[in-house]
Amino acid sequence: MPSRKSLQAEPCPVARSVDSIGDRWSLLIIRDAFDGVRRFSDFQRSLGMARNILSDRLRKLVEAGILELQTASDGTSYQEYVLTRKGQSLFPVVVALRQWGEKHLFAKDEPHSVLVDKRSGRPVPVMSPQASDGGVLSATEAEVRKVD
Amino acid sequence: MPSRKSLQAEPCPVARSVDSIGDRWSLLIIRDAFDGVRRFSDFQRSLGMARNILSDRLRKLVEAGILELQTASDGTSYQEYVLTRKGQSLFPVVVALRQWGEKHLFAKDEPHSVLVDKRSGRPVPVMSPQASDGGVLSATEAEVRKVD
Repeated sequence: MPSRKSLQAEPCPVARSVDSIGDRWSLLIIRDAFDGVRRFSDFQRSLGMARNILSDRLRKLVEAGILELQTASDGTSYQEYVLTRKGQSLFPVVVALRQWGEKHLFAKDEPHSVLVDKRSGRPVPVMSPQASDGGVLSATEAEVRKVD
Repeated sequence: MPSRKSLQAEPCPVARSVDSIGDRWSLLIIRDAFDGVRRFSDFQRSLGMARNILSDRLRKLVEAGILELQTASDGTSYQEYVLTRKGQSLFPVVVALRQWGEKHLFAKDEPHSVLVDKRSGRPVPVMSPQASDGGVLSATEAEVRKVD
């Protein structure tokens, strides 16, 4: 394992986000949480990961304020992991990962799951950063202004 | 290290994307590539990571078609790593990570770098998935339709 210098003091917001959620398991747990998975055993079944690693990642996501523990919604004594507001606001990150995958990681006629708007049943349109004129902002039209 | 089952056969596009780029170093290399970093030594200086890990991640990003090797733009014999079209289209992923970080990982008056539209000089607006009525689509208004 590489030495894991914390990026939480970096002035770059991408670095801080990556430090919080930028690993395979955390991202997949967050995806599952958006899909309604709440219990340890259900995360484990969905992700097929070792219990100790799942336990570690869930703890870190709770510490980061992305998930919170709640008593089970069905009145049993289970504990459930639920996205906080901060966690819910990762939705654009998950959608961006999904849309890039849809475009680039599937063969033309290969089926994949689809994110739909519940009200209309229609697929969610491709999301893009917006330029000042309201059009799509490409990477080459943007630049990062560093902190002095 | 957890056993690393490939997710490239998963019907979930998020899983395939996470499998390709869902690790701390790959995401930071991609961020740097968007900021114009091109050479091995410059990635190393920016990220402070071990040479062997940087070398491994760059190779994987090239294999995944996200970066490509080019001869140096200044006529020297350096090799440069440049985002392909597939790599460029990760822009919304990086912007989503940035915007989540800006909102949640900085104190109110703590300075951070800012992504601006070059033409207007103005910060790039917050990006959100769009609902069918043109408004912001929240996570609870969306659902994943699985493949049969």
